[in-house]
Amino acid sequence: MLADAGIVLTPQERAGIEVADFGLGSLDEIGLQVVVYVNTERVCAKELVLFPGQVCPEHRHPPVAGEPGKEETFRCRTGTVHLHVEGHDELVLGPGEQFTIMPDTLHWFQAGDEGAVVSEFSTRSRDETDVFTDPRIVR
Amino acid sequence: MLADAGIVLTPQERAGIEVADFGLGSLDEIGLQVVVYVNTERVCAKELVLFPGQVCPEHRHPPVAGEPGKEETFRCRTGTVHLHVEGHDELVLGPGEQFTIMPDTLHWFQAGDEGAVVSEFSTRSRDETDVFTDPRIVR
Repeated sequence: MLADAGIVLTPQERAGIEVADFGLGSLDEIGLQVVVYVNTERVCAKELVLFPGQVCPEHRHPPVAGEPGKEETFRCRTGTVHLHVEGHDELVLGPGEQFTIMPDTLHWFQAGDEGAVVSEFSTRSRDETDVFTDPRIVR
Repeated sequence: MLADAGIVLTPQERAGIEVADFGLGSLDEIGLQVVVYVNTERVCAKELVLFPGQVCPEHRHPPVAGEPGKEETFRCRTGTVHLHVEGHDELVLGPGEQFTIMPDTLHWFQAGDEGAVVSEFSTRSRDETDVFTDPRIVR
């Protein structure tokens, strides 16, 4: 799917793609595939790959160590992603469309029938501090 | 070049592509074409397009208002970019290769013979505070 989107990875990046099932054991339904390009103290950039219908479950990025939580912009590259953000109507993003989610705001998203490739531009990722609504989830 | 790289823009983004000649009036040699996806207080993401051999001239991003200067990661998507960073040997980045430039570090870059499309992931862009080595340059 990344190659079909015209995205080139290094061999190390290909070998290091993160496959997250959020501890629920049903990857095809609830999960996410992630390539982390960079994650410094200040900036993070990733590509997210979602299979058809796959869901990234509801969560938020709380403040950590006196800093505001993670702010992230999702930009759809291929396919369609349905984005649900606290306080907003459902957003449907197609290629070239994007939305910025402010810190500590609940959100979840689901790919459409063709799946989706989504670029994420954000402040530092601290996945271990994410707060998921479903208490069974372990990130 | 963006379309050839598989990158989809909205009509507004297409209409708003920034063409920077740095006030020197020789765009084909010294210049840069820029699509800004997002530029908040904390995060910025752009696509940079360089014509064959085109140069982005030497500059640095100094501290502003008590904050460290802009930190930026350049990731080559298509073509080749020759990156010159203070304190480093010349870097040649091909598709999928990237480099992170820390704040207040002099750098310049030039596209190879096919031009280049380069993604930039950074902290906030404040172009008006950039410091160029060539005193004729007005950003």
